[in-house]
Amino acid sequence: MPFNELRKDFLLNRWVVIATERARRPTDFAKERTQQTQTNSCPMCPGNENMTPPAVLLYLKSNDKIVKDKDTFSLRHKNWLIRTIPNLYPAFGPPKEQADEECIMKADNFGYAVGHHEVIVESPKHDEHPSDAELPQLVHVVDGYIDRLQELSQKHYVRYVSIFRNHGQEAGASLSHAHSQIIAMPFVPTTVAQEIEASLVYRNQRDKCAFCDLLEQEAKSQRLITEDENFTVLAPYASVNPMEFWIIPKNHAPNPLNLTNPEKEALAKTLKTTLKALKDLVNDPPYNYGIHLSIDKKAKEHYHWHLEVYPHLAIWAGFEKNTGVYINTIPPEVAAAELKKAIAT
Amino acid sequence: MPFNELRKDFLLNRWVVIATERARRPTDFAKERTQQTQTNSCPMCPGNENMTPPAVLLYLKSNDKIVKDKDTFSLRHKNWLIRTIPNLYPAFGPPKEQADEECIMKADNFGYAVGHHEVIVESPKHDEHPSDAELPQLVHVVDGYIDRLQELSQKHYVRYVSIFRNHGQEAGASLSHAHSQIIAMPFVPTTVAQEIEASLVYRNQRDKCAFCDLLEQEAKSQRLITEDENFTVLAPYASVNPMEFWIIPKNHAPNPLNLTNPEKEALAKTLKTTLKALKDLVNDPPYNYGIHLSIDKKAKEHYHWHLEVYPHLAIWAGFEKNTGVYINTIPPEVAAAELKKAIAT
Repeated sequence: MPFNELRKDFLLNRWVVIATERARRPTDFAKERTQQTQTNSCPMCPGNENMTPPAVLLYLKSNDKIVKDKDTFSLRHKNWLIRTIPNLYPAFGPPKEQADEECIMKADNFGYAVGHHEVIVESPKHDEHPSDAELPQLVHVVDGYIDRLQELSQKHYVRYVSIFRNHGQEAGASLSHAHSQIIAMPFVPTTVAQEIEASLVYRNQRDKCAFCDLLEQEAKSQRLITEDENFTVLAPYASVNPMEFWIIPKNHAPNPLNLTNPEKEALAKTLKTTLKALKDLVNDPPYNYGIHLSIDKKAKEHYHWHLEVYPHLAIWAGFEKNTGVYINTIPPEVAAAELKKAIAT
Repeated sequence: MPFNELRKDFLLNRWVVIATERARRPTDFAKERTQQTQTNSCPMCPGNENMTPPAVLLYLKSNDKIVKDKDTFSLRHKNWLIRTIPNLYPAFGPPKEQADEECIMKADNFGYAVGHHEVIVESPKHDEHPSDAELPQLVHVVDGYIDRLQELSQKHYVRYVSIFRNHGQEAGASLSHAHSQIIAMPFVPTTVAQEIEASLVYRNQRDKCAFCDLLEQEAKSQRLITEDENFTVLAPYASVNPMEFWIIPKNHAPNPLNLTNPEKEALAKTLKTTLKALKDLVNDPPYNYGIHLSIDKKAKEHYHWHLEVYPHLAIWAGFEKNTGVYINTIPPEVAAAELKKAIAT
């Protein structure tokens, strides 16, 4: 199969994957938008494992123990708890030969979209979204993120691993079975690269981590939503999405690779609590969430991983797309107060 | 009325307007998304002038001559050709007193969203979109853009004027009457600022304008869609939107303020031709377009204005929002070939 092409906008320093792997004809689009998300036979439901490529990771229950199985014959197992499979139409595809690996970046502004694109099926139950899931199941999901991050980040052509979730058709979820996605890619993406760079400047100037400082400053602000021993949830000062919130670990770390078991459980609990509050408050809105992290050893001191939740409540139209400036109709202080109230009830 | 607040993301150098002027409660959103765009009594249709604020600019037909009327009593005229009115819920609002004008930017990362937000009603006919409009009517629209740009760019608190159009509800058009919007703002927005800055670097390195060079390079490329004496239309090399195209003037200028009458007519014609091709090809898809320009005298030599059209055919989901990296499923070369074919038929 040919690779997807990676192109860079010279002026905006912005990357785009020209996805010939999933290429469409212009006329496909009108039809596509009217299709339903719900399918009669869901490829992610138990029993339909033959509808997907073989799994790269399964968690199985065996004699009341959790077994993590990475062998592909596990495809035939049906009693899985979570299941990770390669995306059938990957945005970033694995190198086929040594030669491919060497030509990841042909030039400064052109390359191949080499990497991995996986789907984590979060539960055997079709509709089990994080706000409704049992806590142990959500801990498996967090564990699955970290297991895949561990494996993918060790590949020599991988510079970043994006872990994200789309909920609802308007937020880009083309299948309604509860799932997340993982994209391993050969460069650090624009937004995260900017954050890492600015965090380095901040650290050099003040000898402190920008996010650790933020946690201290926001601890008593109107933008604090909830916190426990391990995580703080806040509506960021310059949120671009109405009702946006971030989940930030109190322990400084560039990525979640070294999370302890209590921390994993705390993250699962925080996800459940906050996503349930959002669901109750805005009638199950579409949303996206994603983790910002660094796997670069050099960023250890100055970058601080976190998870950003973007409710999909506004349309980014001509002004936003043309200027890169956003209009948010819910002040973060109001978003925080409402989410806080919803969590309490 | 209180000002909208302007906030800056410290790490991403990204601006957001916290729009208290149009503030919503979280619970408003669920309902709002189901509302219809079409209203029985359209505030932009002739005869409903009393439903909007007084016009700031009208083009009238009088004895077969076009009269441009800037007096507010023109509100009562009903035989207008185009009509510009202040937005009822402005993202950027005019200063009320001298003191306001002086505190546009209170600090580096905070300020007030001072400026103007206007709507240009493009035609007395509700549904007259650019692809169907008569050419003289479209020339009035182009003329209206330039008249408003002329006036707004002279205000001492205005650093940028964004001129854009949303077509279709999915692309953010909340009213279906053919209209564009104009936002005058107190800073140069992120995306345009980056383009201007990179164009300056290009000019310093090569003593040429990046866009003039682009026109030369792309003249025989597969990404060229159409051209005439005055304008070139191409699908940019690193397009982030499927079917995206740009309309670029052949004459170097930082903004369209000095367009000649033949150039205005050529722009109107190019808009009509290309938007009609898009409409025919993808069954009237939603889209946004916007002009990138500079009103800074210092950018005269190195910046080159143009108009970017973004068909709304893909959903920017968790990956795009979290990383700033885009996935485009139609290669620009395919987009160009298809649009070219559609123009020819």
